Amino acid sequence: MDFDRLPELGHVLSVDQFDRPFLDKICDVTQEIRELRDKPDGKRLLKEQFADRTAMLYFTQPSSRTYTSFAVACQELGVSIVDVRDPHTSSEVKEESLLDSIRTFSSYVDVLIMRSPVEGLARDAAAYLDATPRPRPIVNAGNAKDEHPTQALLDIYTMRRSFKDRGGVDGKTVAFVGDLARSRVVRSLAKLMYHYYDMQLLLVSPPEFRMKPDILAHLDQHRVRYEETADFNGAVRQADVVYMTRVQDEHDAADGTRSPRSFPEFHFTQEHLGILRPEAIVMHPGPRRDELDPATDDDPRSKYWRQMRNGKHLREAVIACILATLQRKRNERRR
Amino acid sequence: MDFDRLPELGHVLSVDQFDRPFLDKICDVTQEIRELRDKPDGKRLLKEQFADRTAMLYFTQPSSRTYTSFAVACQELGVSIVDVRDPHTSSEVKEESLLDSIRTFSSYVDVLIMRSPVEGLARDAAAYLDATPRPRPIVNAGNAKDEHPTQALLDIYTMRRSFKDRGGVDGKTVAFVGDLARSRVVRSLAKLMYHYYDMQLLLVSPPEFRMKPDILAHLDQHRVRYEETADFNGAVRQADVVYMTRVQDEHDAADGTRSPRSFPEFHFTQEHLGILRPEAIVMHPGPRRDELDPATDDDPRSKYWRQMRNGKHLREAVIACILATLQRKRNERRR
Amino acid sequence: MDFDRLPELGHVLSVDQFDRPFLDKICDVTQEIRELRDKPDGKRLLKEQFADRTAMLYFTQPSSRTYTSFAVACQELGVSIVDVRDPHTSSEVKEESLLDSIRTFSSYVDVLIMRSPVEGLARDAAAYLDATPRPRPIVNAGNAKDEHPTQALLDIYTMRRSFKDRGGVDGKTVAFVGDLARSRVVRSLAKLMYHYYDMQLLLVSPPEFRMKPDILAHLDQHRVRYEETADFNGAVRQADVVYMTRVQDEHDAADGTRSPRSFPEFHFTQEHLGILRPEAIVMHPGPRRDELDPATDDDPRSKYWRQMRNGKHLREAVIACILATLQRKRNERRR
Repeated sequence: MDFDRLPELGHVLSVDQFDRPFLDKICDVTQEIRELRDKPDGKRLLKEQFADRTAMLYFTQPSSRTYTSFAVACQELGVSIVDVRDPHTSSEVKEESLLDSIRTFSSYVDVLIMRSPVEGLARDAAAYLDATPRPRPIVNAGNAKDEHPTQALLDIYTMRRSFKDRGGVDGKTVAFVGDLARSRVVRSLAKLMYHYYDMQLLLVSPPEFRMKPDILAHLDQHRVRYEETADFNGAVRQADVVYMTRVQDEHDAADGTRSPRSFPEFHFTQEHLGILRPEAIVMHPGPRRDELDPATDDDPRSKYWRQMRNGKHLREAVIACILATLQRKRNERRR
Repeated sequence: MDFDRLPELGHVLSVDQFDRPFLDKICDVTQEIRELRDKPDGKRLLKEQFADRTAMLYFTQPSSRTYTSFAVACQELGVSIVDVRDPHTSSEVKEESLLDSIRTFSSYVDVLIMRSPVEGLARDAAAYLDATPRPRPIVNAGNAKDEHPTQALLDIYTMRRSFKDRGGVDGKTVAFVGDLARSRVVRSLAKLMYHYYDMQLLLVSPPEFRMKPDILAHLDQHRVRYEETADFNGAVRQADVVYMTRVQDEHDAADGTRSPRSFPEFHFTQEHLGILRPEAIVMHPGPRRDELDPATDDDPRSKYWRQMRNGKHLREAVIACILATLQRKRNERRR
Repeated sequence: MDFDRLPELGHVLSVDQFDRPFLDKICDVTQEIRELRDKPDGKRLLKEQFADRTAMLYFTQPSSRTYTSFAVACQELGVSIVDVRDPHTSSEVKEESLLDSIRTFSSYVDVLIMRSPVEGLARDAAAYLDATPRPRPIVNAGNAKDEHPTQALLDIYTMRRSFKDRGGVDGKTVAFVGDLARSRVVRSLAKLMYHYYDMQLLLVSPPEFRMKPDILAHLDQHRVRYEETADFNGAVRQADVVYMTRVQDEHDAADGTRSPRSFPEFHFTQEHLGILRPEAIVMHPGPRRDELDPATDDDPRSKYWRQMRNGKHLREAVIACILATLQRKRNERRR
């Protein structure tokens, strides 16, 4: 693969910035990196690409798979990492402003990967840094309730790969199930659906956790067909993709609600494997609770473990594109 | 040294899996790695061996020397590391099951090194991963009260090196001193003694912290001679190895006991150096409290600092064997 | 640049150990490393210098810029890092003595970089290790209230660079502003001033936070001219360097005081830019609060962001000197 010809990429802040050509291209790059890694010496070749680069992983919101997949993705590309995972270990305890802290970190590294409970922090940080003499690309690795763009990308990649012999993502019926009101994963992914032809969404949730009006308006505006329903079995029968989600009860306090641990009427179990279409797939962004029975793990249509591994592949592609873009700019300045 | 011919090694879960040929071989590999490192360019050569590999250090139980020695051992072999040291920074706070978390981490790395307060977690994780399509080797780096196999290996290596001109470990008298009931180090090491000829154990403890019946039964079954005693001075006079241990009072709450900080009648002090045999050695797995007087540090028979450094050497050998085994399997699949 | 000819450097414990030739030399090395990094392949060349070395970052006191700059500096030189940032993850919870912990860490690495709330810990650790058979260089990265030598060095480097066309640091008037009693940065930097010709210090603080008598005595003894004043505007008009500092209220509890968040009469704002001399500079070690208005960030005389980035450059030079010294000793032993 040719690292000089990777697509241009700066900040990754929101799914709103992606168009269909980019979505197609980033999936291609992900696939190329995977294939390169499986070749003899492929992993060593990857590791030499960006061996002079450093990334800050600023993860002040708990995370297992996002943190680990980004950390490993960076290191597989040779990128050194420095991390902040506990805000109490940083100068924020000395009442430094958040944006000063972020400018500080950005000063020492090439790219900042941020996950924070603060609404809009990645976006604000990007705008702030862009106004300084030393801007740095920022990757939003999950921000409060609003966005999780790299998760949406890895979900798209997982669908495209799973349906590679059936025309990719286009024309599929996707059932989103669970806490649709607060799942930033579902919100982000739903907003990408209009880039694909002839999609149909089934929004399966308890009444109190229906998809929020802003997303429904977005779907309406872009003429994506959707149906809100509580008929879980019907949705499972009909869907190409059953996308399960966890109750996001970490937001209960802020929302003034008190959610159950899960909704038993929307648990995906072995029985549902019987009504699921043979060519359909089951996805889950993880972590799961009771909404997805581990007894379904071994079914070939269960793609959630693969989806999780795709997180590393996709994030590696994202970082490669960002650093290749920096490299081109650096070379241009030298000319 | 020839990395292609390292001994086969998968999970490292318990001392029960080691036999004498393995014990001898892993000590040889440890020694070879040490000698290679001291050659010009030896450290660089080591660093190139596994530069395309990644290890997860999952350390949710506090640790200084085990964590640091594993982390440095990995890096000296070129292995990238990602760590989880505070379970609150991971998805466990979102009530993910422990085994799901571990499968998640294992998905992104080549080997998992685990230290946990959860009884049997390394073993359960290994069994769980072995039942998935993508098993990963697991190294038990200390699990609750039960096992600490790499510590036992480094202790064996330390004895063998110390007695290299006196026939190695065979035929020695080892005095274990202190909280024998709860020291997983002592428990693990005692279970290895039967692999050596003509060993004699002196089990020196206060009555309430005697060696547990399961270990005594193990010694009986394998015909290892042992004597339980409270005569510390007599044991020091007789022993080839005086193996001191700390009171494991972190287990007091679970045990419903309330231990003293140390047992003054079993403190090893400068006076004991006078009655210790000239060719004997003193060991301690660390961290120490009052049971081992720092004033004895400079005596040439005090091997506990060297023992600690051996931890890195031995763990480097263990990781090298595991990764070389993975490499051979990968090469076989490619053929 | 020639890494074999870097100046000799062992422990970095206190500004008291630096003389003028060293100060000049470490600034030169810093500059050379910066220039090397900007050359094509310069970053890769740096990364190969010490690829067989490991550093421990022992940071049990919160820090953003010091930690990150050291971590990145190490990695840019190819040095692997292992860190301890939360003492609760280490054996200190098992009541190991601090010096035993530090000897433990030092056993696995080539250099120890320490930041601790414990008064004099870096100095004590260095003395302790020097008395063992395996001493290791220690870098004091900020110790309680007393010292912060690498910060003082980067401040010197920042002044020298800023005044490179005006004779460097010599002959300048430096206004230190704020909590002069407890800023270890100011204390360390003030003690370096006598190495430069014809310096004048303006010590601007509220009465309760005046510079401590030990520093004033040091200035008197070395005949450094200084003036204590509360006339902030006058100082700004006169100074070549306005060095702003934050109220160090983390020491309030220990001191039995209760400080305000900042002193409004000593806030540097846009209005002060109007009276600041055209060739003067504004510095701040960070993190800032209200004492330094972000609206002044874009003025070319505001050097505090550059100063912060210089932290990485300078620390890279310090580590390079230390490791080159180790390398020379190793080579001598081999001869």
